[in-house]
Amino acid sequence: MDYEALKKLIVPSEAKIVLLVMDGLGGLPHEPGGKTELETAFTPHLDALAAKSDLGLSQPAGPGITVGSGPGHQAIFGYDPFEYEIGRGALEVLGVDFKLEHNDVAARGNFCTVDAEGIITDRRAGRLPTDLSWEMAAILRTIKVDGVEFFIEPIKEHRFAFVMRGDGLSPALTVTDPLKVGLRDLPVEALNPESEKAARSINEFIKQARNLLADKSPANMILLRGFAQLPDLPQYPEYFGLNPAAIANNGMYKGVSRLAGMTVLDVPEDTILSEFDTLEKYWNEYDYFFIHVKNTDTCGADGDFEGKVQTIEEVDQLIPRLMALNPDVVIVSGDHSTPAVMKSHSWHPVPLLLCSKFVRPDGVTEFGERACAKGNLGIVKASDVILLALANAGRIKKYGA
Amino acid sequence: MDYEALKKLIVPSEAKIVLLVMDGLGGLPHEPGGKTELETAFTPHLDALAAKSDLGLSQPAGPGITVGSGPGHQAIFGYDPFEYEIGRGALEVLGVDFKLEHNDVAARGNFCTVDAEGIITDRRAGRLPTDLSWEMAAILRTIKVDGVEFFIEPIKEHRFAFVMRGDGLSPALTVTDPLKVGLRDLPVEALNPESEKAARSINEFIKQARNLLADKSPANMILLRGFAQLPDLPQYPEYFGLNPAAIANNGMYKGVSRLAGMTVLDVPEDTILSEFDTLEKYWNEYDYFFIHVKNTDTCGADGDFEGKVQTIEEVDQLIPRLMALNPDVVIVSGDHSTPAVMKSHSWHPVPLLLCSKFVRPDGVTEFGERACAKGNLGIVKASDVILLALANAGRIKKYGA
Repeated sequence: MDYEALKKLIVPSEAKIVLLVMDGLGGLPHEPGGKTELETAFTPHLDALAAKSDLGLSQPAGPGITVGSGPGHQAIFGYDPFEYEIGRGALEVLGVDFKLEHNDVAARGNFCTVDAEGIITDRRAGRLPTDLSWEMAAILRTIKVDGVEFFIEPIKEHRFAFVMRGDGLSPALTVTDPLKVGLRDLPVEALNPESEKAARSINEFIKQARNLLADKSPANMILLRGFAQLPDLPQYPEYFGLNPAAIANNGMYKGVSRLAGMTVLDVPEDTILSEFDTLEKYWNEYDYFFIHVKNTDTCGADGDFEGKVQTIEEVDQLIPRLMALNPDVVIVSGDHSTPAVMKSHSWHPVPLLLCSKFVRPDGVTEFGERACAKGNLGIVKASDVILLALANAGRIKKYGA
Repeated sequence: MDYEALKKLIVPSEAKIVLLVMDGLGGLPHEPGGKTELETAFTPHLDALAAKSDLGLSQPAGPGITVGSGPGHQAIFGYDPFEYEIGRGALEVLGVDFKLEHNDVAARGNFCTVDAEGIITDRRAGRLPTDLSWEMAAILRTIKVDGVEFFIEPIKEHRFAFVMRGDGLSPALTVTDPLKVGLRDLPVEALNPESEKAARSINEFIKQARNLLADKSPANMILLRGFAQLPDLPQYPEYFGLNPAAIANNGMYKGVSRLAGMTVLDVPEDTILSEFDTLEKYWNEYDYFFIHVKNTDTCGADGDFEGKVQTIEEVDQLIPRLMALNPDVVIVSGDHSTPAVMKSHSWHPVPLLLCSKFVRPDGVTEFGERACAKGNLGIVKASDVILLALANAGRIKKYGA
């Protein structure tokens, strides 16, 4: 997408857009000749919506490519995930819903075990229990280095997110983790002059960490890898003219939403119901809402076909509340497929439904993979979906006379 | 396709892929309202396979573009034919199944007739009979030039393939063929400094050829054009992680397969049956098989609708032998369309069938142009088909977390 060209065509509108993402929505038949999760689910409201919508299939990152949730959401938000790569360190930090800033340098951290000579004997410190990881993080947070600020966010077991903030930092750095035992940790080296301050600061941090943790057990040292900064995504307000809000219960999705320039709304409870309550509460304050449903993916990844079916049915029951708000454009899709039979993300294109006043309903009266394959949108690049949303909202003016 | 990005995602798998290409498979109705060759053919086995497959249409090089067999195969192998152009000289040499190496400079040669002053009187020496062409080639093979080696491969009538091998050769050369009679042949000129050695060597070759052939008749001179080197195609083993084999009876297809990094298997007889025998014989030794059926295209180009139908039926009868091998991924398609009513290659998208455990069969129970147009793969770029094959074989890991 040529964002600069698009930006020139964006015009104001009162129209409101809702993007409802059921994570990992796409599926596969439970048995040969059978139905997928979405086809199995009893979805009278989604089917009724389908009957007056354009249907198609959304492809996150091209034929055959399976994406993680980070790239999958980048795509459905309008950003080619190969063009705007979110490095591993940055994804890790977004995952714990840390408010990573644009010049921060993030990394994936491990608490590990070293012997008296500093040789690594266990890269994961015996998969350090999470509560011990929090104690270790508290120690690391006492470290001070001039001109930079550090943030340590425990994730799970031995894993933590590492963030460095300050002027003049760049992530072109070698890793400290030799990736195997029997070796010492490595000093960080700058891969270009812009990264020299970052390298010096991290090496000083590690020196202090080594001293502070020396007499701890079982973890007595740290390893860092995957240094990354956030990519500069063209911002929703500036490039798409939207005042956007995100409704999600999990860190990663909030993080990627924030990265796109969305305001992340507070959802009181970790339920789909609470997400729809939040949508109603803030309805008048924003003109674009992204709502994220996590459990479809969780069930798919667990191989829980029936759980995924039930989650879709739970969402279906909430569709009337969404439609009662009279949104101008509603898109229902997923960020990728997570077929329960595969217990993993997959490359299969994702059902896509677009409802507005300006569609050409094609007589397909069901929301499902095969129904969408016959829909009149065809196979759409996920990163183009935002263009369809903006167009249907009357937010893209004519190009040329 | 970004091959470097893809390469990072490739993982090993035991899964086996078969790509069955019926050359020029796509067709057109014999008369208005009628059926195409593929729709006419009685194909119970392909139809049964279609019922449990994803169907679509494959587009070799974009809408409206008709490709030759070389670019058509490049495309279905995963290479955009406009991005990776195979020059005419190189195609000519691949066509005679010569093992062209990467730094070789190849050209298309003509035996021609010149008068006593060296003026060309017949560019084709009266379409020199092929056996005389072999005699002339034997003479040219005696030519020696320091630092380079020459290969002369007769093709048909006055045409031969010319190959020069040695260090420091480049194909940026002007042609010797003035392309009309009444003129002398032209000296080869280097179009850049890297081509100077090649130009000098070819001019020396031509000087000797002129002397050796002077008293022959009707051909007494040669013309060269279409100087080319092979493009560097990302290799199947390195980029796709495959150990691939090609089964084909014609030089061009073997040549393009070799160019992609495939091992070309020996097929004892020039029959489709012998090709399937070869598939069975080598089944345990490779994890990717390309099988090429030539006669569909030959019949199409001859306007032989019924012959093309019969060839498709012959292939259909062999499908059970293919499926008995339990391939994990089967793709049946063509390299381009060759409608018998057009007696030529055409731009029409080509029927595409993909069968694996991970498909969403859509109730289409026929393998034909119109059936495939309703299939859930939609219209696929031919060069993306390899991505679908790799994904269905479990050979592409997730991008991002």
